Formats: sequence, C-alpha cells, structure tokens
Amino acid sequence: MGVINHLIRQIDEKNCPIVMGLDPVIQFIPDHIKSLALSNFGNTVSAVAESFLKFNQELLERTHEYIPAVKLQMACYEIYGAAGIEAFHKTVALAKDYNLIVIDDSKRNDIGNTANLYAAGHIGRVPLIEGFDHPNLTDFVTINPYLGSDSILPFAEVCDDLNKGIFILVRTSNRSATEYQEATIGGQYLFEKIAEDVQKLAEARLVNSQYASIGAVVGATWPEESLKLRKSMKNVLFLVPGYGAQGGTADQVTNCFNEDGYGALINSSRGIIFAYQQPKYQEIFPHSEQFAEATIMAILEMKKDLLTALSKAGKLPENW
Amino acid sequence: MGVINHLIRQIDEKNCPIVMGLDPVIQFIPDHIKSLALSNFGNTVSAVAESFLKFNQELLERTHEYIPAVKLQMACYEIYGAAGIEAFHKTVALAKDYNLIVIDDSKRNDIGNTANLYAAGHIGRVPLIEGFDHPNLTDFVTINPYLGSDSILPFAEVCDDLNKGIFILVRTSNRSATEYQEATIGGQYLFEKIAEDVQKLAEARLVNSQYASIGAVVGATWPEESLKLRKSMKNVLFLVPGYGAQGGTADQVTNCFNEDGYGALINSSRGIIFAYQQPKYQEIFPHSEQFAEATIMAILEMKKDLLTALSKAGKLPENW
Repeated sequence: MGVINHLIRQIDEKNCPIVMGLDPVIQFIPDHIKSLALSNFGNTVSAVAESFLKFNQELLERTHEYIPAVKLQMACYEIYGAAGIEAFHKTVALAKDYNLIVIDDSKRNDIGNTANLYAAGHIGRVPLIEGFDHPNLTDFVTINPYLGSDSILPFAEVCDDLNKGIFILVRTSNRSATEYQEATIGGQYLFEKIAEDVQKLAEARLVNSQYASIGAVVGATWPEESLKLRKSMKNVLFLVPGYGAQGGTADQVTNCFNEDGYGALINSSRGIIFAYQQPKYQEIFPHSEQFAEATIMAILEMKKDLLTALSKAGKLPENW
Repeated sequence: MGVINHLIRQIDEKNCPIVMGLDPVIQFIPDHIKSLALSNFGNTVSAVAESFLKFNQELLERTHEYIPAVKLQMACYEIYGAAGIEAFHKTVALAKDYNLIVIDDSKRNDIGNTANLYAAGHIGRVPLIEGFDHPNLTDFVTINPYLGSDSILPFAEVCDDLNKGIFILVRTSNRSATEYQEATIGGQYLFEKIAEDVQKLAEARLVNSQYASIGAVVGATWPEESLKLRKSMKNVLFLVPGYGAQGGTADQVTNCFNEDGYGALINSSRGIIFAYQQPKYQEIFPHSEQFAEATIMAILEMKKDLLTALSKAGKLPENW
C-alpha cells in the first residue's frame, strides 16, 4: 500500500484527522520522569534524551488508538546531539510499532548532492562502506523550497523509489510568513506559485488515490489563503500547523479540507502533549503522573472541535 | 574579540579568503582509512563516522596553517545518525583547537520557539534538566529565510548574546535559484529584498568592524548579481559557495569582494578535500595515503587563482 493510502486509512479507521506533535521540551516534562532520568544519568544530555523517550513512550502507548499519525519536530531532538538523535529514532520505531504514520518535521533544504544526502538520511537508505544500511523508518519529511526544484526533486525521487512522502512548506503559520512568501511571480504570490509546482509534482505521481505522497504545509492561521490553496492543490494533502496555540480555530481549518472531509491533517503539539499543565485539565488530573490522561482528553476535545466544525461546514465524511 | 574580527584576523594572517568544506562522502574516503574502520567497527554507521573523523583529523592537522576557516556540511554527518553527529562535534572541537573559525552549514529554519531551539542547538547553549550544558563550539550557522523574520531573529539574538554569527541564504549557487528567488517584491527581486533586510540586521550590530556577525550566502555562479549585492550589503560578509565544481571562476568571485579585498570567504569542498582523486594531483601524489598533500596543493592553487584574480581586479589587500 502506498504511504499516502496508509495515512488515509489510518485517518479513516480512527475517524480523526489529527497529528500529534511529539515536540518535547525539557522544562515541560513531568517531574517524576525527570527525577528518574537524573538519578540514572546525572544532569546530562543523556538524562534529557531519556526523559523525552519515556515521555513519548507513554504518550504513544496511551494515545495510538486515537490518532493516525505523529509528527516529530527535529529541533527538539537534535539540540541534544547524538543522545537526542537516538531518542528521535527510538521514538520513531515505537510509533511504527503501533502502525502510526511518522512525519519527520525537519524542514531540510539544500541542492544537488547535498539534497540527496538529506533525502537519504531522513526518508531513504544510508550508504555504508559496503552497501547500504536498512532504510529509515520515517514516512514523511518536511522540506523548505526556497532553493528551487534542484532542492526538491532529490526528495521526490526518494519518495518514488522507497514509497515515502514529503510535505513542502508552502504557506507557514507564523505572522511573518507574509514577508517573503507574498513576493509576486507571474501575477501571483510566491506561495501560490510554489503551490502550483507542488500540485504538478503530485499530479504526476497519483497511484490509486486522490492524493499523492507529495504534500504541502499550509498554516491554519490563513483561512482565506487555505481556501484558495485547497482548490489549486487538488491532489495534495495538507499538513496544517498553527491550530490552537498559534490562533487557528477549528472553523478556520475546515478550509483546508476538501468537500468530502479529507485532504488535511491538523497538527497540535504543546496543546495536547503538555495538556496536563493547563488548569482545565489539572482540575481533573491533578497529578503530573496522569499527564497521558490529560493528553487523551485534549485529543478527544480537539477531535470533537474539528468534527463539529466539519459537520457545520457540511464536510464530515459520511462513514465517520 | 568579536567572532567576525576573529574571522577577518584569520583571513589576514593566512592571506587567504578560502573556507575548506569538510563534506565527507564515504565513497570518496581513501581506502586505507576505510579498511581500518571496517576492521575496528565492522560495516556499520560507526565505521563510516570513524572514517570521517580520521579523514578530517588528518586534513585539519595538515591544512590549518593555510586556511582561516572550515565549513561542515551537516547533511554529510546527520545521515549517519548519532554516530555522524558525534563525528561532527569531534571535528568541530579539533578545528577549534587550531583556532580556525567553524561554520555549521545546516540551513536551519523554523519559527518562534522552534527557531530558538535550532539556534540554541547549533550556536547557543543547551538547556539541561538543571541549568545549561556548555555552549556549542561552532562560530556560525547558515539559515534559510523563507519563513521571514520570525525565523531569523531568534538566531540573531543568540549571535548578540554569545558572540556567534549566521550566514543567511540570499542567492544560492544552483541553477534553479532563479525559480523562487527571482519573485519580485517592492520593485526588486526577492533575493534583493532579503539582502536589504540582512544589511539592516548587520548595520544594527556593527562593533569595531566594517562587518557584522550577520553574513549572507551569495553563490559564485551569479557574478552580475554578486556585484549588485556587494554594494547593497556593505556591512555583510559573504560566504560564497559554487567556486570550481559548480562553475564559478576566480574572476567571477572577485565581485563578492569589496575594493579593499575583504568581505568574502570562498568555499571549496570536494575540489580540495578529494583533490587526491583528480588525475592532475594523482600524477604527483599517486598513493591515496598522500591525500592531504594533494589537498594542500589544491588549496595553494586555489589561493593563487583567487589572489591573481583579485590583483587583476585591483582588489588585492595591501599587506598580503
């Protein structure tokens, strides 16, 4: 099965278009996890990496039945060097054990041979002194398109060869997305031109699905743009950051979905993984050992929020 | 001493504006290094990482007196996961022991808190469970500006706080740089607008130097653009890829220098570190054990090439 169909089947089985952002930040990890790591590893990067792994492990164990996919923000892991990278790979392996789709959010970008190396290192297979190492386990990686097609095609080729996918940054969720993404080219905004190019890459790769394994990142914070982009990228699945903490509402993100209620994956990171720190969940789950309970509740509330908005927009999938 | 003055002093002491790209690729590493690593570590990522480290170590030992700086292409290392990242950090430490300036070429980009994490992880200091780890040793990191100022300022702040620097991608050396970088904004190309913004960031940070620690990546392959960019970014040092293998000539790159012969650092990676594989150096150094000799000769030839071109352009620094 193609990776995009695997993703859509996961969304369908769980009736849920949410991707959980496993973006651990040490100051927000529950104390009992940190204390144990400190006593085992001292105050080191290894203790942080161990804390992240234990935190992710419990979240995955408890939440995998509710969500179709996880997204790992690479910055959270690579800051801890080799130890962080190991925690990243171990988390990916755990998520794959639960049959979840794994998105490596690392926004890589470079040209030619270097782009080949990034593609191989994130979604491909790694050359050893003799032959290759086993392929990477992540299913999708995010990439930044500023360098042009030289920087995109090497990733698309790995997708074709190894049944992997990419999400290309088109319109990011941050306020200053307007600064450069709204330069104009051929009578349209740059992000619209990039969207056009992403659609072309997707269209050329359709196999038994409305969507190709070439996706786009489209921020939840730009509902008018999302509406237009949804139309111009009809074979492109959207990875949508910016819901919740960054201000995107459920009603706004319905614009990222097609009429049939598919075509978008809405990310939430801090809003769900650190739900246990929010007063409204603390009232119900007062002990930080209950952090995964709070996360489950936050996922279910977000799901209800999204499905209600989709229903209101007349876009709720029929069989959900 | 500010990091930019340290760099300029290194360039001046060595009369040489070359940065050596330590971009190891396993198939090009000399056989005797690979054989030893294979027998010590088997056919594993650790053997590759060990090969890279030994290769870099010998190159640094032999070439540090000729060059002011090294640039490490992160893609070459991170493809080998934790083992690769360790080889990266050990190489950085070796280069710092020789007082070389170290540029981490990883083109990172993200927004807000995530940009903070990337900045901390590449040129900053890393939060542990209690307090912070020691600061990173790299002096500069390259970043991609497509996400706008939200994605740039977190890096600039670390530069201010910890005496570090960044090189912002302005005009890349690849052919498809034209595709998106030539969108227009306010009557100019996007890359020119970004150059304007980079100059503003630099201007606001000048301390006892013509140059700030906010630099720009400007490809050697666009001589007309370089000439204009040199004028619009007068307080910005250029990191220049694309010389040699990608087609940029010494005469073309003179456009990246100011009239006084400063203001640019010209990169060469494969052209010098794998010189031992070129027929013209193999004639002189037939054994792959002599790879570092070939690299020294390639550096000296590149230096002669650049200094001759600078002299012809009337830009050779007076005291060189």
